[in-house]
Amino acid sequence: MAVAAQLLRGAVRSPPALRVAAAAGRRALGSAPPGLEAGRGGRRAALAAVGALGGLALGLWRWQQAAMAASEEEEEQQLRQRFMAPPVSGLRELRRRRRELRSRMELLLMETQAEVCRALAALDPGAAFAVDTWERKEGGGGVSCVLQDGDVFEKAGVNVSVVFGLLSEEAARQMRSRGKSLKAKDGKLPFCAMGVSSVIHPKNPHVPTMHFNYRYFEIEEADGTKQWWFGGGADLTPTYLNEEDAVHFHKTLKEACDKHDLKLYPKYKKWCDDYFYIEHRGERRGIGGIFFDDLNSPSKEEVFQFVKSCAKAVVPCYIPIVKRHCHDSFTPEEKLWQQLRRGRYVEFNLVYDRGTKFGLLTPGSRIESILISLPLTARWEYMHTPPESSKEAEILEVLRNPKDWVH
Amino acid sequence: MAVAAQLLRGAVRSPPALRVAAAAGRRALGSAPPGLEAGRGGRRAALAAVGALGGLALGLWRWQQAAMAASEEEEEQQLRQRFMAPPVSGLRELRRRRRELRSRMELLLMETQAEVCRALAALDPGAAFAVDTWERKEGGGGVSCVLQDGDVFEKAGVNVSVVFGLLSEEAARQMRSRGKSLKAKDGKLPFCAMGVSSVIHPKNPHVPTMHFNYRYFEIEEADGTKQWWFGGGADLTPTYLNEEDAVHFHKTLKEACDKHDLKLYPKYKKWCDDYFYIEHRGERRGIGGIFFDDLNSPSKEEVFQFVKSCAKAVVPCYIPIVKRHCHDSFTPEEKLWQQLRRGRYVEFNLVYDRGTKFGLLTPGSRIESILISLPLTARWEYMHTPPESSKEAEILEVLRNPKDWVH
Repeated sequence: MAVAAQLLRGAVRSPPALRVAAAAGRRALGSAPPGLEAGRGGRRAALAAVGALGGLALGLWRWQQAAMAASEEEEEQQLRQRFMAPPVSGLRELRRRRRELRSRMELLLMETQAEVCRALAALDPGAAFAVDTWERKEGGGGVSCVLQDGDVFEKAGVNVSVVFGLLSEEAARQMRSRGKSLKAKDGKLPFCAMGVSSVIHPKNPHVPTMHFNYRYFEIEEADGTKQWWFGGGADLTPTYLNEEDAVHFHKTLKEACDKHDLKLYPKYKKWCDDYFYIEHRGERRGIGGIFFDDLNSPSKEEVFQFVKSCAKAVVPCYIPIVKRHCHDSFTPEEKLWQQLRRGRYVEFNLVYDRGTKFGLLTPGSRIESILISLPLTARWEYMHTPPESSKEAEILEVLRNPKDWVH
Repeated sequence: MAVAAQLLRGAVRSPPALRVAAAAGRRALGSAPPGLEAGRGGRRAALAAVGALGGLALGLWRWQQAAMAASEEEEEQQLRQRFMAPPVSGLRELRRRRRELRSRMELLLMETQAEVCRALAALDPGAAFAVDTWERKEGGGGVSCVLQDGDVFEKAGVNVSVVFGLLSEEAARQMRSRGKSLKAKDGKLPFCAMGVSSVIHPKNPHVPTMHFNYRYFEIEEADGTKQWWFGGGADLTPTYLNEEDAVHFHKTLKEACDKHDLKLYPKYKKWCDDYFYIEHRGERRGIGGIFFDDLNSPSKEEVFQFVKSCAKAVVPCYIPIVKRHCHDSFTPEEKLWQQLRRGRYVEFNLVYDRGTKFGLLTPGSRIESILISLPLTARWEYMHTPPESSKEAEILEVLRNPKDWVH
């Protein structure tokens, strides 16, 4: 398997990560949690009791157990091959709670990560994804996949994180874009936050940078009420404007939205333009896409289905654009302009992005995974102003005055 | 004059800035403010009256006036040659209010800018400082000097800004590190803020980056009380540790401090280590120097003299280090490590630096001048960890655990 090989290569390339990955792997897949071990002890006692009843019954029971174990192992192996690494919550736990939305969302995140990584790796055969599985001391962990300095991609990171624990009221308030306050018991709120987040910076200045992120939150209030919401989106940051690409990207997202409600795309397209705004430059980071947050209606199931459609749209909205331009020729001046735009990307992410700011200020968060979003290289020139009517001025115009790409 | 030539070259290199510079130049040097024009009108009336008294007295008066004008013009020319551009407040105004601390501070800022720019330009003869004079719509303006992509310096910016106007109570509170609240009349506080600020990023990874900033604030409260304070400091960010350089830098700053009070250096050295802390990395930005803020005792004159000593120490604490290493040979790996450290510099400046954050969020501030501090190029690699006992690990150790360089 290409992905399995990459997993190994990735581990070899980053030894400290390997140790973490191995530890997390053991926890998630190898040995069962203490509760389950106790269960097995109980099963042994039951077995002894069954033994007293006769050989036939025992033999049948054993055969069933063995058959179940074989199919479980097979299923586990299949799942393992589907993903870049074992899921944070462990496959057994996810299977046990397979009907719960938390489990279904975690599987969707892992699937999306693997789909995107495979699609990117297929376009950059000389490069490999480094895969790190990490644990968060306070609860949860994640899987970070990073391809760096490839032939096609300068840096591509696809992160899954699933974290849980207790939040202060203030931290909980900051997690919601609407800043709603939540009632805590003893000042602390049990929470669970999970998401897939990715930024892909290609080398060729004619291939745009792409970002997507889909996330789910649960917070339990003092009276036991569970607040939940989804957030996410995908947006494109080209160095040069290509209308065909812009239309394809927006159209694919619009189709994903339209399956659920025709009002969604226009609303989330505008939200995206508003969110990715570098105020001190008077420019958007890119040509937009969709963005939504605090989404908790009409129902958990319906929102999940919408988020699933969006996640499934990542590969079709971006990969054709990469394929189309990754062999385009470019000049040193075009590469330089790309580097200056990378500088703006850094400005947005470090100064404005709520996710990055929240991550940097949260104790115990994994900084390397949060800052995967930063490009490999960036540039800042004093007073750089492209000439009027140039290709550089053309994209600036669109960044200053967002356009509607599909109607 | 080398500086005058650079001024012209700089202006030619950035046409939009030239227009601003020319406008500001006219304002500052060409025509006198309306008040002074009225004064001249009054003088003409007086002249007519004198004429009625007889020729001799008039001749003598005229001669005196002509002699004064000649020396004023000469003095102005001398001042103009001393600085990189005309001061924001105009030379006449500064001369008229020569005893006021605001004027003396503005002259010190302009002098420091010119001293530093000349010293840097002398080490990088192939490059030139671009000089922009800019105005702030709400009041005041500045002089930005930038040398970019030279042989020795990757990017060196030396800014002077002198701004005034009205502040909201909230903005005034944010300007002070102690966050003291001030009583405003009708919710607004008249203020004046001036400073010189500089970041110098050399090309050679064996030459450290240096930053300094000296500033003065005045705020008038509702009852007419004037709150004033000084702030500033200088700090060094090496890519590789050189103990001799570290000791020289700190020793020079300590000598400047010790002339005023032996308690200052240890206190401001610690403040510097605390301030330039990249919390999410658990590292300082560099090997420190001095940092102070909200300084308003023992007296305005004494604090000014201290700040003057610090400003005069900039060239002697840094230039010898540049001279010593600017021709050192270096490997591509050393250049790469420098680029990664530049990335950390960007992280500190965009995420933590109070001056940058305040500037980016203040309407009407000149973004290009604020972000001069960012390096020309920077790099972010996922999970980059230098090998144990390497030169890269050596500097990291000092950034994680600051040392005392002089006692």
